[in-house]
Amino acid sequence: MKLATYRASVEASARLGIIAGDQIIDCEALGAALGEDFPATMLDLIDLGPAGLAVVQQALDEVDGDWPIGIAVPLSNVRLLAPIPRPRKNIFGIGLNYVEHVAESAKTLDTSRELPDKPVVFTKPPTAVIGPGDAIQHNAAMTQQLDWEVELAVIIGSTACRVAADNAMAHVFGYSVMVDVSARDNRRAGQWIFSKGQDTYAPFGPVIVTADEIDDPHDLTLWLNVNGVEKQRSNTRHLLFDIPTLIADISTGMTLEPGDIIATGTPEGVGAGRDPQEWMWPGDVIECGVDGIGTLRNPVVAIGPVGQR
Amino acid sequence: MKLATYRASVEASARLGIIAGDQIIDCEALGAALGEDFPATMLDLIDLGPAGLAVVQQALDEVDGDWPIGIAVPLSNVRLLAPIPRPRKNIFGIGLNYVEHVAESAKTLDTSRELPDKPVVFTKPPTAVIGPGDAIQHNAAMTQQLDWEVELAVIIGSTACRVAADNAMAHVFGYSVMVDVSARDNRRAGQWIFSKGQDTYAPFGPVIVTADEIDDPHDLTLWLNVNGVEKQRSNTRHLLFDIPTLIADISTGMTLEPGDIIATGTPEGVGAGRDPQEWMWPGDVIECGVDGIGTLRNPVVAIGPVGQR
Repeated sequence: MKLATYRASVEASARLGIIAGDQIIDCEALGAALGEDFPATMLDLIDLGPAGLAVVQQALDEVDGDWPIGIAVPLSNVRLLAPIPRPRKNIFGIGLNYVEHVAESAKTLDTSRELPDKPVVFTKPPTAVIGPGDAIQHNAAMTQQLDWEVELAVIIGSTACRVAADNAMAHVFGYSVMVDVSARDNRRAGQWIFSKGQDTYAPFGPVIVTADEIDDPHDLTLWLNVNGVEKQRSNTRHLLFDIPTLIADISTGMTLEPGDIIATGTPEGVGAGRDPQEWMWPGDVIECGVDGIGTLRNPVVAIGPVGQR
Repeated sequence: MKLATYRASVEASARLGIIAGDQIIDCEALGAALGEDFPATMLDLIDLGPAGLAVVQQALDEVDGDWPIGIAVPLSNVRLLAPIPRPRKNIFGIGLNYVEHVAESAKTLDTSRELPDKPVVFTKPPTAVIGPGDAIQHNAAMTQQLDWEVELAVIIGSTACRVAADNAMAHVFGYSVMVDVSARDNRRAGQWIFSKGQDTYAPFGPVIVTADEIDDPHDLTLWLNVNGVEKQRSNTRHLLFDIPTLIADISTGMTLEPGDIIATGTPEGVGAGRDPQEWMWPGDVIECGVDGIGTLRNPVVAIGPVGQR
């Protein structure tokens, strides 16, 4: 299933939808048409576990494209939001998780040339999340080094506390795309939360593809263009720490919960690693994607100096 | 007001209470007795803003200690939980924010001898929070360097986006105590989330004292004992970056929201900075506090090696 969070109009609330061709099916309305109580939000669906997905899938099979009136809307008529517009906690990010990116980072950032022997975990607050089409803020008073990083995002489906790698994939709900935007000149005592955690620094979406529809999450092409020029292109087969390893490692001490997001790291081709270095500026447009999931497009806009509120 | 989250019995739900001498007043029940709809949880009260606090204070004044039956319970009969048992996002921590702590850290950790020129922000996930009396987990398979750090915690009362320092204190709801537990041997590429973000690594409480009851948050004694022996004692007057500066700085790019927690940093006397170094071990008991707020007491317990779930 391809799941999205959408608004049917600017006044409408954010709702869970299922993509069916060029239409979006409202999940709660689908249930109501069948006399059943279906979840209205992505987190509500995730909380239901595999049984929730199974019931929705059964309903889709039953209706089989013959949508009752009011349930299906053309995708072109709605606005897609981040699939989880407001995560319940920080996003977990993984630094230095593609070999060539470790090398390019060591050249120009203060990171080591050695491959990490354990996943390098960092976080972004939930306030960093934006959806497809939303603007990435460029605050020139704060940064002159705003960088891109396209990543495969893993969405956790069930509580994972000290799980073994062998069992870790059972905790995956699905996959999405996230851009790990970074203000490279705003690290502090080496900490990345300030440089990576700013409002709008986590473009996310356009959809979550459920785990059953991704044959091999370790063989997905991911790419990123700036103003139509390709800057990153790689494949998740080059992940240094694969998804089960990341889930097992994080969950040794930090319990993962339904709806948690792990951004698995970015491949080579970031702005900091280029010669000469390149950065994002107001007016730029970032387009990126993971094959089989979808494409995210976000403009960069200037915000003024710090105001007085 | 001294506010707490408590359970009247093991089966009872977590509820918001107001400390009145040796009793705790149930906030929602107080409202009901007056025919009003009062909040049942700390976050619900915080969300109401200053008007919420004013209405509760007025009710307390009105009843004036003559509690209707069922509203007041002896403190000794309830269990206090973390004041916000489940924050809505990561906790913001501040590293290296007391001068002597910067010096002791530079001696034995990989941090700089220089005072930071900007606050060193890091995070802990909400799953790290535990309350008074709860156990700090010691996972010997992961760490041999579990350290203590007592801190003044600031609770945000209203959305703060790019606020000036001059206006920052208006965004403070109240103050509490937090221990920033750290597994010093678990930093990764310098990132602190894994070493500081483990489950149980954020003891928090016992209460939140509302901002109006703290004359000067920059003149509070804070201290920490391990097994009855004093290890830390300082005063918030020695904060390198004061509270308005922290709020203004974080909010330049990361919007602070009602219920957010900022742990403002720890003074000298941590285990890593001692000669010889000292660490926490199963069986130890950590007791700490901030004068005018209260005392937190947490045992350290062993957990087994990573299991298979």
